[in-house]
Amino acid sequence: MKRKRTKTVKIGSVDIGSGHGIVIQSMTKVPTVEIERCVKQVYELVEAGCKLVRIAVPRRADTEAFAKIVQKVHIPLIADIHFSPDRAIEAIEAGAAKIRLNPGNIKNPKDIIRIIDSAKMHKTAMRIGVNEASIADYQTKDVPGDKRVALMLKEMKKYVRLFEKRGFDRLVLSAKSSDVARTIEINRKISETFDYPIHMGLTHAGLPEDAEVPSAVTLGTLLAEGIGDTIRVSAAGNPVEEVKIARKILVSLGLYERSEPELVVCPTCGRTEINVVQLAQKVKEAISSIHKPLRVAVMGCIVNGPGEATHADVALCAAKNKAYIYRKGKRVAIVPDSEAITALLNQLHKL
Amino acid sequence: MKRKRTKTVKIGSVDIGSGHGIVIQSMTKVPTVEIERCVKQVYELVEAGCKLVRIAVPRRADTEAFAKIVQKVHIPLIADIHFSPDRAIEAIEAGAAKIRLNPGNIKNPKDIIRIIDSAKMHKTAMRIGVNEASIADYQTKDVPGDKRVALMLKEMKKYVRLFEKRGFDRLVLSAKSSDVARTIEINRKISETFDYPIHMGLTHAGLPEDAEVPSAVTLGTLLAEGIGDTIRVSAAGNPVEEVKIARKILVSLGLYERSEPELVVCPTCGRTEINVVQLAQKVKEAISSIHKPLRVAVMGCIVNGPGEATHADVALCAAKNKAYIYRKGKRVAIVPDSEAITALLNQLHKL
Repeated sequence: MKRKRTKTVKIGSVDIGSGHGIVIQSMTKVPTVEIERCVKQVYELVEAGCKLVRIAVPRRADTEAFAKIVQKVHIPLIADIHFSPDRAIEAIEAGAAKIRLNPGNIKNPKDIIRIIDSAKMHKTAMRIGVNEASIADYQTKDVPGDKRVALMLKEMKKYVRLFEKRGFDRLVLSAKSSDVARTIEINRKISETFDYPIHMGLTHAGLPEDAEVPSAVTLGTLLAEGIGDTIRVSAAGNPVEEVKIARKILVSLGLYERSEPELVVCPTCGRTEINVVQLAQKVKEAISSIHKPLRVAVMGCIVNGPGEATHADVALCAAKNKAYIYRKGKRVAIVPDSEAITALLNQLHKL
Repeated sequence: MKRKRTKTVKIGSVDIGSGHGIVIQSMTKVPTVEIERCVKQVYELVEAGCKLVRIAVPRRADTEAFAKIVQKVHIPLIADIHFSPDRAIEAIEAGAAKIRLNPGNIKNPKDIIRIIDSAKMHKTAMRIGVNEASIADYQTKDVPGDKRVALMLKEMKKYVRLFEKRGFDRLVLSAKSSDVARTIEINRKISETFDYPIHMGLTHAGLPEDAEVPSAVTLGTLLAEGIGDTIRVSAAGNPVEEVKIARKILVSLGLYERSEPELVVCPTCGRTEINVVQLAQKVKEAISSIHKPLRVAVMGCIVNGPGEATHADVALCAAKNKAYIYRKGKRVAIVPDSEAITALLNQLHKL
């Protein structure tokens, strides 16, 4: 996967850009003023794979809490300030490594300048974004899809120019929509137009089970084209679920190192003589305590099985009443089916 | 989404190619000789959204059963004949609308010619494929990824030439791997090189819950680039689950008409004052009996909520103790939270 070249932007200790790994981020979803809960959630997100965490600071009390949270965690934090220039300045002074700002939400240009100057002084990065929903508020009620993309790009150009004119280039760009095709399109355009790192996500996707496919299609497509430097999957509820989906997307493209075994299972067909799903679920459970990025294959036939086994660290090809066990592509055992899982685990432990 | 131009190939009554909708297909997974069970599964797949169903015919008894199944269903069937030229001829004569054939699996070139001639006579289409796992058997044990793609393309060129020389052009092409990046790459190359319709899938993905993200990334990326004319998601177990994932992928890109409401839910954040997931799950249940492609939004804040509401047919923005109800972007009611779902349903029924 060849990444589109971008500048590097420092978000505290984390570098973002094409010269660095793709960074997963997410957002706390407990009230920011409940400092201990918030810190706990930051650590849960770090444990799950986040290198950056964003925290909403809608009120003065939140930026005060934010200042304390910054002291209690070792990763850079991003403040989501939304409408308020005051919250932006407070968050920057509180030690935010990055501010998320939709300039379209700040009505007075002087306020934007004030924020830029403060961020510059504190070496705070800034994610500036356009959001189709915000644009729609005042401009695009009945604008067709492709025109919306053009409008979003135009808006983004205006913002970038504003920041650059003020000598600020610690920028990460993002453009969001809840429409998959338009999110793909606007991000392609942004990647063509600018060389700042890109933050990608799909807004308001839905419940985790409904968010998975649209997020994988959107982010997967862009990542496969080399676009995107930091990603956030949006889903309602526990943010750890967002990170798990983000990780799966990156893993599928080889952009994130798995730390757990990968279970490859044949799709089963009319040739299958055994209950592969049941067997695979048993194998999944049996290997769940192994924390190594091994590739384990469970195949239900001896047609595609041996071929697939050459790509797996350990493979089990199950036929009627017996199982063929492979290690690194070599057949190492034929056992009765009752001993198949034990035989597989034995081979796994040899690695 | 602009599709890459391909020829149209007739699979019985179903046209495949860029001039037509993207066709979902799947495969029966009950023994083919159990005719009634097989027919029942074909109809379950049709109900779920399949326009083509593939059936494995590894043995002589299977092609005999296949002939009877063809008579009992109204959709075109594809026969998976694998190693056996005899099964291919039998399936063609039994009325298969398409044969799936990996020419690499047929050792004697004369057999391939025999199959081509029979298919030509019966106007049977042919999916010809290369599969990384099969190639690996004899050529690529330690070949790096990019070389494998080149080898697969070379193999495909050889096959296409063979068929074209014999005057056969009812071809659908497919190249499979269990590696996401290579599947994307080889399909891009095939799309650049040939103008036959493309069948896409990812081999041996795994259990449905593990297959979803890699399949969405692979097929989503290619579809978003306009590549692919028929798709099959592979997952172990009930094939209806494969079709559901395929449908979600197509729906996300606007390539398939939803027949159910879409539930957009805000990702929730530190601003959220209510339990959005719980509320969304209640709404999901309440709308589950509605079979119209409406867009329903459940938002947990009044910051992004109203903007998002303009894109939804009906929206609910929940604040503390009360809910704002929108229809087609206009606020139509403010109700206490206990009445929120009823008020939402009322508006839905007005549409």
